[in-house]
Amino acid sequence: MTDPANRLNRLRALLAERDLDAALIVHPANRFYLSGFTADDHGPDESSGVLLIDRAGATLLTSPTNLPWAESESRVPVAGWERPWERFVGKRLRDEGTVRVGFEDAALTVASHGALMTAAGGEVALVPLGDATRSLRAVKEPAELALMAEAIRLTDDVFVAATADLQPGTSERALAWRIEREMRERGADGPAFQTIVAAGPHGARPHHAAGDRPIAAGEPIIIDMGARLGGYAADLTRTVWIGEPTPRLRAVYTVVESAQRAALGALRAGLTGKAADAIAREVITAAGHERDFGHGLGHGLGIGVHEAPSLGTTSADILSEGQVVTVEPGVYLPGWGGVRIEDVGVIEADGFRVLTGAPKTPPD
Amino acid sequence: MTDPANRLNRLRALLAERDLDAALIVHPANRFYLSGFTADDHGPDESSGVLLIDRAGATLLTSPTNLPWAESESRVPVAGWERPWERFVGKRLRDEGTVRVGFEDAALTVASHGALMTAAGGEVALVPLGDATRSLRAVKEPAELALMAEAIRLTDDVFVAATADLQPGTSERALAWRIEREMRERGADGPAFQTIVAAGPHGARPHHAAGDRPIAAGEPIIIDMGARLGGYAADLTRTVWIGEPTPRLRAVYTVVESAQRAALGALRAGLTGKAADAIAREVITAAGHERDFGHGLGHGLGIGVHEAPSLGTTSADILSEGQVVTVEPGVYLPGWGGVRIEDVGVIEADGFRVLTGAPKTPPD
Repeated sequence: MTDPANRLNRLRALLAERDLDAALIVHPANRFYLSGFTADDHGPDESSGVLLIDRAGATLLTSPTNLPWAESESRVPVAGWERPWERFVGKRLRDEGTVRVGFEDAALTVASHGALMTAAGGEVALVPLGDATRSLRAVKEPAELALMAEAIRLTDDVFVAATADLQPGTSERALAWRIEREMRERGADGPAFQTIVAAGPHGARPHHAAGDRPIAAGEPIIIDMGARLGGYAADLTRTVWIGEPTPRLRAVYTVVESAQRAALGALRAGLTGKAADAIAREVITAAGHERDFGHGLGHGLGIGVHEAPSLGTTSADILSEGQVVTVEPGVYLPGWGGVRIEDVGVIEADGFRVLTGAPKTPPD
Repeated sequence: MTDPANRLNRLRALLAERDLDAALIVHPANRFYLSGFTADDHGPDESSGVLLIDRAGATLLTSPTNLPWAESESRVPVAGWERPWERFVGKRLRDEGTVRVGFEDAALTVASHGALMTAAGGEVALVPLGDATRSLRAVKEPAELALMAEAIRLTDDVFVAATADLQPGTSERALAWRIEREMRERGADGPAFQTIVAAGPHGARPHHAAGDRPIAAGEPIIIDMGARLGGYAADLTRTVWIGEPTPRLRAVYTVVESAQRAALGALRAGLTGKAADAIAREVITAAGHERDFGHGLGHGLGIGVHEAPSLGTTSADILSEGQVVTVEPGVYLPGWGGVRIEDVGVIEADGFRVLTGAPKTPPD
């Protein structure tokens, strides 16, 4: 990772701006970003560690079980907690005389917040950070971009290998497993999210759990996949078919591809997430599919599979240089299926540098 | 799944007991338990759906993107939300005149809680459910036990297959991948958690990310693994070695195995989680390793990898018939390594029925 001090210092600038003495970081992706500790959390009610960052220092607090692991990975000092961690951390804040502590209200649970307040006592104020940490990871450093490019290249290669010689009768599940196996065998940490293989009518579901249904020739097959590498996610969607596409598939595919091309050509720093979405949506609307594109155009990508900025009808984000986003218009027709095409790229001052390179032509 | 109505009705009994009109369920594991919808959440700040359960009905609310998928899986009616979901759900509570709504304070974030309150208005009271939903899933139904037994049998088989003919020089990572590949190829959904392979000194870390270190003959190799099948997790730890164990390894292994045997023989309904832990801990303490067993004896297992009840020094749980728990004492010696042995079983009226069957003798 590059320059962790810079990351901590950006957070500290935020503290200074808001007159805060410290920040308590509990979101697993922010914890990894700021410390390098790779543990994930098992659900919202179990924490693998929290970061306490003040004007001068930073400490990763974790369970005795995780302690030696955390020590082997963390770039900031590590200390063990006694359970419940909220009581331990609250007391520490009180004992150290910390007065104003920012916390991620979008990640801390109501119960943890209450327990922290009780243990910290009336002298400590917990101040919600709101949207402030949402954009912490949005602009990528060069080393992050290099890692993401590598994760994406691996994903491209896996797509090509796994869809080569695709035969009718293969189940969605078998194809999804072929994809995930290839990811691991080529050195990925694993899939960054559950691989979607949605064939025929299943393609009308933008999200879908791959099942036992055999894939038939001519029908659309949506494949949404992404490897995780060094903690960073790739994200790629291609819609393919076996043999000859039906005229309808060809027509819908052309609409989605045109919509995506329009957006890819327009993206640049300064554009809003809402305007980006509108560019693709207009093409889909003009083709009569206004009601068939029921999700946003894209989302930020990085440690998180979905992170800031957002590209959608309600997005208030303004795109900045160095942000990495997906561009993934789709058209979904209940009973028939769907087409989605997704690429990932970097927002630049005067354009969009696409990182994904998987072919958009169907397999032979 | 069996008898989902019974699950909803147990929750409704809780509502009646606390004079609540409805419950809002946001924890992914509880959402799956009560609805059957398999989606997971990507981090604490992104929900794949929430369940609103009142005295008469239940609705799974989710995004338009997830809607068709949810409809294909959910046992309760599904409806789409508009983002932000908190505003949509809050308004719905207000419009329906719901007055007292229980929520999982250990799972709902501070930000979501605030947005819900704002949208719901002053007439709606959000009441924390506290520990009430923690034990919702603890006692397993017969069909759940059958599914868990199947997940565990698969895990046993994978352990045997993956450790057969284990050679010095194999990396931790390669062995972990062999294990996860076997899980998938034998029909598991995937690993229920990141497989731990901690060889030699790495074994002194109870949690550890498998790395490139080659495994050497004679050193302890901790393998902690579990397949997920039909949504339910298995959990199995074995400590093995290649060739002849060192005298120290043999000695530590004997201590841990004795501690585990003592606990397995004592577990039964009515015992406290604290007493169960103490039985194993006493054996380890008597052998001079009091400070080397830095985690609890075990935890509940089911949809969650860690769920109620807890077996540990601070547990307040009393064990009940039909609960499924792990029993996993360990001894960890910094610089040398560790030994942990973990089995899973069902608490019965007069004993403990062990479900795991993987051999405890080392590979040849």
